[in-house]
Amino acid sequence: MKFASRVKELKPSDIQEMFKVIAKPEVISFASGVPDPDLFPVKEIDEITSKIIRQNGDMALQYNTTEGYVPLRKKIALRMKQNGVESSSENIIITSGAQQGLELSAKLFLNKGDAVICESPTYSGAINAFKSYSPEFIQITTDKNGMKMDELKKVLETRNNIKMIYVITDFQNPTGKSWSVERRKELIELSKSYDIPIIEDSAYEEIYFTDNKKPTLKSLDTGGRVIYLGSFSKTFCPGLRMGWIEVKKSILKNYITLKQSSDMHTNILAQMQIDKYLELYDFDAHIDNIISSYKNKRDKMINAIKKYFPSSCSHTYPEGGMFIWVVMPDKLDGRKVLDEALKENVAFIPGESFYPDRETKNTFRLNFSNAEESKIEKGIEKLAVVLKRVIDNVY
Amino acid sequence: MKFASRVKELKPSDIQEMFKVIAKPEVISFASGVPDPDLFPVKEIDEITSKIIRQNGDMALQYNTTEGYVPLRKKIALRMKQNGVESSSENIIITSGAQQGLELSAKLFLNKGDAVICESPTYSGAINAFKSYSPEFIQITTDKNGMKMDELKKVLETRNNIKMIYVITDFQNPTGKSWSVERRKELIELSKSYDIPIIEDSAYEEIYFTDNKKPTLKSLDTGGRVIYLGSFSKTFCPGLRMGWIEVKKSILKNYITLKQSSDMHTNILAQMQIDKYLELYDFDAHIDNIISSYKNKRDKMINAIKKYFPSSCSHTYPEGGMFIWVVMPDKLDGRKVLDEALKENVAFIPGESFYPDRETKNTFRLNFSNAEESKIEKGIEKLAVVLKRVIDNVY
Repeated sequence: MKFASRVKELKPSDIQEMFKVIAKPEVISFASGVPDPDLFPVKEIDEITSKIIRQNGDMALQYNTTEGYVPLRKKIALRMKQNGVESSSENIIITSGAQQGLELSAKLFLNKGDAVICESPTYSGAINAFKSYSPEFIQITTDKNGMKMDELKKVLETRNNIKMIYVITDFQNPTGKSWSVERRKELIELSKSYDIPIIEDSAYEEIYFTDNKKPTLKSLDTGGRVIYLGSFSKTFCPGLRMGWIEVKKSILKNYITLKQSSDMHTNILAQMQIDKYLELYDFDAHIDNIISSYKNKRDKMINAIKKYFPSSCSHTYPEGGMFIWVVMPDKLDGRKVLDEALKENVAFIPGESFYPDRETKNTFRLNFSNAEESKIEKGIEKLAVVLKRVIDNVY
Repeated sequence: MKFASRVKELKPSDIQEMFKVIAKPEVISFASGVPDPDLFPVKEIDEITSKIIRQNGDMALQYNTTEGYVPLRKKIALRMKQNGVESSSENIIITSGAQQGLELSAKLFLNKGDAVICESPTYSGAINAFKSYSPEFIQITTDKNGMKMDELKKVLETRNNIKMIYVITDFQNPTGKSWSVERRKELIELSKSYDIPIIEDSAYEEIYFTDNKKPTLKSLDTGGRVIYLGSFSKTFCPGLRMGWIEVKKSILKNYITLKQSSDMHTNILAQMQIDKYLELYDFDAHIDNIISSYKNKRDKMINAIKKYFPSSCSHTYPEGGMFIWVVMPDKLDGRKVLDEALKENVAFIPGESFYPDRETKNTFRLNFSNAEESKIEKGIEKLAVVLKRVIDNVY
C-alpha cells in the first residue's frame, strides 16, 4: 500500500503527544493551549440542551445544511456588525472549530508549491493544516507591532506564487503579541495591491485585558479580501468544536462545497446549543468573567517571571489571550530544556513546532489560562532554577 | 485571488441543492437520503445528555484527543468483534461522520492523477470527497452480486496507478444492491494480490431486512488491507455527525495526524452521548425497530412500483438500507424526468451524480426510509404516470 506524498511531510502535533507526559498530578503544567474548564457555562448548557432536545429534537438530530443553522448564523453576523463588519448570515458558514476553517482555506487556495505567508513564529495547528497541501511557507519576522512591513513588501514584490497570507493579529498563539492598528491598515493595503487573500485567525480576539480593543482586519477591509475565522472555543467551550468563517458570498460558496465533501455539516445540536445560549444569556458578561480570570493569571505569571527568570531570557507581555512567549539565549534548545524541566515537574511547549521549518530552537510557550492560579508562582520559580542551571552549563 | 485547481472540479451536491425545491409540503419526496426522524431516540438522548453534562460537564466541553473518547472506542471495538473482526480501541478513530472517513482516506492515499476504483454507480458524497484530490476514477460495472470480477481483474492487471478500491457492499447508496459472499472473498483476494487497500463504507450494513446478514469485508480480511468506515447516522442519528474508522494501527496513526489538522477531534459531548446510549440502552433492539419500519416501507414502495411502473423501467429489490434504484429506457434523462415529476409534486434524485463522469443519464434513486408511509403508493403512482408520458413522448 502506498500513501500520498503529503503524508511524509506531516508530523503528529507535539502538543497532543505531550498531554500524555503531563497528565501526572504532580506536574505543574504551562504546556496546554486550552481554556479553563471552571469557566465553562455547564449549568446553562445543561438547561439549554434539554430545552432544545425536548422542543426540537427531530431537527437537532437530523441532517442539516452544510452552511449551518440560520438563527446562529444571524446572531454571529449581528455580533460581527457590532464590531464594525458589514455582515449577514449569508456571509457565514459554521465550521467544526476554527481549525476546520484553516484546513478548508488551505484546500481552497493552495496548489502544491504555492506559497503561504505567515508570521514567524505562527500557530502550529495552522502549519499542519497547510502542510497537507504541500505549500512553500514564507515566514515574516514580527516585532512588537506585528509583521515587519518592509520584509513583507519585499516578498510580495519579488515572488509570484503567493496565494494567501495567514495572520493572528490579536494575542497570537504562540507569542501573545498583537498588531498595531497601523500595521493592520498597511496589511490591508498590501492585500489590495497584490490581490491576495488574508486568512484572519481571530481565535483570541475577544479575550482582551485592556480597554483598547483593536479593529479586526475584517472590519478594516473594504475589498472583500479578508477571510475571517471565528471560534467559540475560547469564549464558550472547545469540546463542541464550533467555529465559523465570515467571507464574501462569492468565496463562501466554495467553502460550502469543500465542507460538504469533508463532513456534510457541523453537529447541528451543538449549533443550536450555542444559538440558544446567545439567545438566553449575556454572552458578553460571560466573556468578561473569562477576561478577568485570565488577566489575573497573566499578571501572576508575568510578576513571577520578572521576579525569578534570568535576565538573559526575554518574554512578551500579552494584552489578551492565553500565552506568554519566552526567548532564551541562542544556544539553548527548548526541547532539551523541557527534558530538564520535566524532571522538576514543570512543563511548557518548546517553540520549535511554531516554525514551519522547525529551525528556531531557543524559544518556548507558556500558557496561563489553564494554569492553577495558586501554582503559577511556584511553577515559574522552579522553571527559573532549571533555566539558570541550563544556561550556566551551556555558557 | 486565485483558487486551487481542485476547486473547478467540484460541484455542489445536487442533493443538498434539491432540499430547497422539495421543502414544499405538497411535494411527495423520495429524494432525500436521510433516516426517519420519528425513529430517533429523542427521549433517551435527553436523559443521557443531562446526565453527562451534570456528572462530567468539564470533560464533555473541553478539548480531547484526536482519536476520540476511549470508552466509546472500546464499545465500538466490542461490537465489531461480535461481527467477526479482530478489533480493539486502538484500531479505532472517531470521525465526524463516515463522510469524514471518506475525505481522510482520499487525503491519505491519493496524489493527483492516482486512480481510485469504485462501483458504477457509487455514492455521490464519496465522488466529491475524492475529487478534492484530483484522482482518476475507474468505474467497474456491477451486477446483482457486486462488482464484475473479470472487469476488475483486467483493470488491476493493466493499470499501475491504482491506490484504493472504494465499495459499499451492503445495500449500497444509490442502488440498494448487496454483494454476494463469494464476490466479497474474491475482492479480498485481489486486494491481497495487488496490495491495494479497500475502503469499505458500511453506512447501511446494520439495516438489513433478511436473516441472512453477510460478513463484512473487514471480517474476511486477514491481511489488514480493509479500512472500515462505520457510521451512527442511520442507526442512531445523523445530526451529531458520528462515525469511525477501523483499521490496523500502523495506518491508524496516519489518520490521526490527518484528522488532527482537519478539526482537532470530533465533538466530545456527541461521543459521550453515543457511549452512554450504548451503555444504558439496548442498541440492537433500537436497530430492530428501524429495520422493521424501513422494511415495511420498502415493501410498500416495491409493491407500488410493480403495480404502476411501466415495464420498460427496471428496478432493484434492496434487502436492506434506504434506497431503490430505477433504470429507465436509454434515451431518458433523469434530470428532465425530474422536471416533469416536480410539476406533479413528486421528487427523486436523478442518477447522474452517482457516476464520476456523470455520463449515465437514464437512472434515478428512490428513498423509502424517510418517505411518509401513507403517501408511498400515491407518490409512486403519480411518478408512474409521468414516466409513461415521458417514455411515450421520446419513443
